[in-house]
Amino acid sequence: MVTIRRRTESVLARLVSDDGSTTRRPEDVLVEEPMEIRLDGETVATTMRTPGNDFELAVGWCHAEGALVDGATVSGVRYCATGSAVDTEFNIVSVDTAGTSPGLPARLGTVSSSCGICGAESIDDLVDRLKPLEPIDNLDGTRLARLVASLAPHQELFERTGGSHAAAACDTDGSLLVVREDIGRHNAVDKVVGRLLLDGELPATGLVLWVSGRASFEMVQKAWAAGFAALVSVSAPSSLAIRTAGRAGLILVGFARDGRMTVYADSA
Amino acid sequence: MVTIRRRTESVLARLVSDDGSTTRRPEDVLVEEPMEIRLDGETVATTMRTPGNDFELAVGWCHAEGALVDGATVSGVRYCATGSAVDTEFNIVSVDTAGTSPGLPARLGTVSSSCGICGAESIDDLVDRLKPLEPIDNLDGTRLARLVASLAPHQELFERTGGSHAAAACDTDGSLLVVREDIGRHNAVDKVVGRLLLDGELPATGLVLWVSGRASFEMVQKAWAAGFAALVSVSAPSSLAIRTAGRAGLILVGFARDGRMTVYADSA
Repeated sequence: MVTIRRRTESVLARLVSDDGSTTRRPEDVLVEEPMEIRLDGETVATTMRTPGNDFELAVGWCHAEGALVDGATVSGVRYCATGSAVDTEFNIVSVDTAGTSPGLPARLGTVSSSCGICGAESIDDLVDRLKPLEPIDNLDGTRLARLVASLAPHQELFERTGGSHAAAACDTDGSLLVVREDIGRHNAVDKVVGRLLLDGELPATGLVLWVSGRASFEMVQKAWAAGFAALVSVSAPSSLAIRTAGRAGLILVGFARDGRMTVYADSA
Repeated sequence: MVTIRRRTESVLARLVSDDGSTTRRPEDVLVEEPMEIRLDGETVATTMRTPGNDFELAVGWCHAEGALVDGATVSGVRYCATGSAVDTEFNIVSVDTAGTSPGLPARLGTVSSSCGICGAESIDDLVDRLKPLEPIDNLDGTRLARLVASLAPHQELFERTGGSHAAAACDTDGSLLVVREDIGRHNAVDKVVGRLLLDGELPATGLVLWVSGRASFEMVQKAWAAGFAALVSVSAPSSLAIRTAGRAGLILVGFARDGRMTVYADSA
């Protein structure tokens, strides 16, 4: 028997139209929660995922990493209830092979992530080491919602390959300060933050981090760690990203394109 | 002095138009190469990235992970030439803080990836443990190039949130066998493969893996490990994905949408 966890949740968001008018309404967002994968009792990975088909995810991950080859057979897959909280009960999945798995190839080592085993713990980890951000009230929504167009001339790699993500640091009025591209959306953000750090410009107080991809937990974590006042994404935010932004005091904007945007977390 | 590495490369690809006609022509693809990050001499991460702004990436990553806080100062950033090959020379970046960094928070541990420190080594690792795939010649390009539309009704989470990736296993004529969604594109693939494994359907000989995101090295790795004959992506492939597919004998298709597609690697 497998309990189906919620895969989406409804949040109250503020839609900003291209004429500047705003409407409050509920929006469905994708649930993002960490899941720990164990192989014959040993923790081998923690991945951020959308709940659902968790056994498939655990088995598929172990297979891709080479732990289920050459006669290894899956004798069971189960949730490991920790008993500590309902939230964590379905966030640990154990793949058992009765010792037939050779384990992960030696070069891989144990992968362990910076998060706990439920979203709340992941946020608490950040609260422990990061300060709440100072609120700002001068975000130029009209210009930020049109930032995609201003960025196009700076996305040289995307223009040539159609395969790169971009991230940018900009002022609250949308003036671009740093733009970076990479095949990985996290890397593009790391490059922007790295540039600011090397220039002595961190924390990025009062600045906006713009990203071409979606706003996941890890993107909010990076924006908060760098001290940005707002994270603006052209795409969707996750449930955990919204909750984390709320704790950080980070303004979180999604679907910022074509002059429109949706505000999922405010700074005040 | 920092040498600029190539960030794109040109490959000869085969474009399939919506009338079924094909044209061979060079296409620019994004370069993907592993980069190892060291902090005060210790390896802390290996990430797949597009070369360029590597010092920013290394410093930005260390900052996001909490290793450059509270008075930690960067005293230097440099490439660690290994001397073994030109390819690897710019794939290790060392961030030095003269001991002022507290290091990574204990809970993070050392992250180490399954790859070597250059693309060639990453491929060799796979060649060591995976067999070449059996060639197929019955791929129905016309139907695969229109698979996006067939998949839409199965992407329930995307329909509701606009924030999920999808992956699917299908026959060479585009008939869908398994469709899965997740906030992470790798997770969606792991779920598909996990389903096939739990159903005793691996290796996925003669089947096609379709993905809603781009085709990076790791996607090709997962497709190969599961024994798929082809990987079809609606978006762009990376340089390393193409080279890896070539070694695997995996058909690699990109930009499969609106009845058109680009073939970057053939099985024969």
